[in-house]
Amino acid sequence: MLYSFDYERRTDYVETDKMGVVHNSIYFWYFEKGRTETMRSLDFPYKEVEQRGVIMPLVEQYCKYVSPSFYDDILIIRTFIDEFPTSKFCFRYEIFRKEENGNLTLLANGHNSLAFVDKTTNRPIRCPEWLSKLLYEKLGK
Amino acid sequence: MLYSFDYERRTDYVETDKMGVVHNSIYFWYFEKGRTETMRSLDFPYKEVEQRGVIMPLVEQYCKYVSPSFYDDILIIRTFIDEFPTSKFCFRYEIFRKEENGNLTLLANGHNSLAFVDKTTNRPIRCPEWLSKLLYEKLGK
Amino acid sequence: MLYSFDYERRTDYVETDKMGVVHNSIYFWYFEKGRTETMRSLDFPYKEVEQRGVIMPLVEQYCKYVSPSFYDDILIIRTFIDEFPTSKFCFRYEIFRKEENGNLTLLANGHNSLAFVDKTTNRPIRCPEWLSKLLYEKLGK
Amino acid sequence: MLYSFDYERRTDYVETDKMGVVHNSIYFWYFEKGRTETMRSLDFPYKEVEQRGVIMPLVEQYCKYVSPSFYDDILIIRTFIDEFPTSKFCFRYEIFRKEENGNLTLLANGHNSLAFVDKTTNRPIRCPEWLSKLLYEKLGK
Repeated sequence: MLYSFDYERRTDYVETDKMGVVHNSIYFWYFEKGRTETMRSLDFPYKEVEQRGVIMPLVEQYCKYVSPSFYDDILIIRTFIDEFPTSKFCFRYEIFRKEENGNLTLLANGHNSLAFVDKTTNRPIRCPEWLSKLLYEKLGK
Repeated sequence: MLYSFDYERRTDYVETDKMGVVHNSIYFWYFEKGRTETMRSLDFPYKEVEQRGVIMPLVEQYCKYVSPSFYDDILIIRTFIDEFPTSKFCFRYEIFRKEENGNLTLLANGHNSLAFVDKTTNRPIRCPEWLSKLLYEKLGK
Repeated sequence: MLYSFDYERRTDYVETDKMGVVHNSIYFWYFEKGRTETMRSLDFPYKEVEQRGVIMPLVEQYCKYVSPSFYDDILIIRTFIDEFPTSKFCFRYEIFRKEENGNLTLLANGHNSLAFVDKTTNRPIRCPEWLSKLLYEKLGK
Repeated sequence: MLYSFDYERRTDYVETDKMGVVHNSIYFWYFEKGRTETMRSLDFPYKEVEQRGVIMPLVEQYCKYVSPSFYDDILIIRTFIDEFPTSKFCFRYEIFRKEENGNLTLLANGHNSLAFVDKTTNRPIRCPEWLSKLLYEKLGK
């Protein structure tokens, strides 16, 4: 594992469904949020990636639901980078509820991988050099 | 009133919240769906509007919630055009549940207005002539 | 005006649409978030309202879109309480983008009103006494 | 494979993001819609499952994104049941765009599994007997 980053966020009413818990699809929003803030913490906000002409569409993703999340829960979204990106950038996630006593209860885990696509040609490319370099400097060795 | 169009659609699980009813924000998706299918029924699908270089961002919208909508309800989204568009295109909506006996129960009503914006200049424009012409031919007199 | 509260929140990728801006329906999520945090700031989290047997469904809401919001914008959601609740609780909102120089650009404003409903009887009630009392203590002259 | 069912549905504007394509999380809504209509086609609408006191929360799910989906695409959501449910009910999905010439282009595939939970005790149970029986009658041999 090269890096992990914790992002804290409350669940919203609109995210719940009639089962009284957060809807299964919303966990993929939490993955997105966790990944976004992880990128920002490493000084390459995703917004900047797009400004430099690269988009990162999802290739695949998976979520395992361990325990339900309820309205107004305080979540910790823990994002892991396990290896340097090549043609894909893989992220792994663990989502916890922060209990009142500070304990963390695991609610879900999952992973996804994103491609790099040149916005102009709309073709897949390898991880841009500026990004590889930045990641090696921050996380290498 | 110049025109009205009914679109039928079931409510989805993801649209409900922990109150056991469809979340208030989702009615604006129903407005969008009703408006989209109304435009299609008049032979100017919104997709074509954008292909002709015009986007139609929302200017304002309002919804009044009369009675809750539940999971798996069959909705009728009734969209009204009350007047020809000028610098704005106004739509009015009534959302009904179709009961098992065929009766319609009013769940919500509302309205919104959309601007016309030139995609290239990003500036507001008046209703494009091709669209005005088409609407007069279909709905005029 | 009795009270106002500012809540800061970034826009998410999932909230944007193909126009490249935040979708119109999402502003109603921002209203919800602003209202929720305003309630919390006054020591009656909405979660507690429901735990005390009362739900607060939306009666009506309105939003005026002034200027688009983009991905990764830092928003200030400003929520106003203009009067003490009786059979309805009315909230007013202004949504701003916090620019890099700290200036606030108005993106939207709106308002909504919520009813009080007894969860057991499913009937509308007036604002519960515990809540009225709390609000008078906090906000009453 | 025991059964498959096709459900047709257009993509909505609200489902797109600033990349100009349907957001990755929305495919899980399509899975839900496909599964719901598959259940209905076999005469056990999910609504009835809940009315009989059972909820079916997600245990895990996976989606592979093959090709992007655009605004106003006509999708075919193909849902497969590969085996009879025991303690889990597994569904598999393929999502296609229906092209103007009638051809189907694969956009995504995936699968998920759902548990059976007794609403009263909140405990996992095996597939209810009434449902097993119904499925064997419809799909057995």
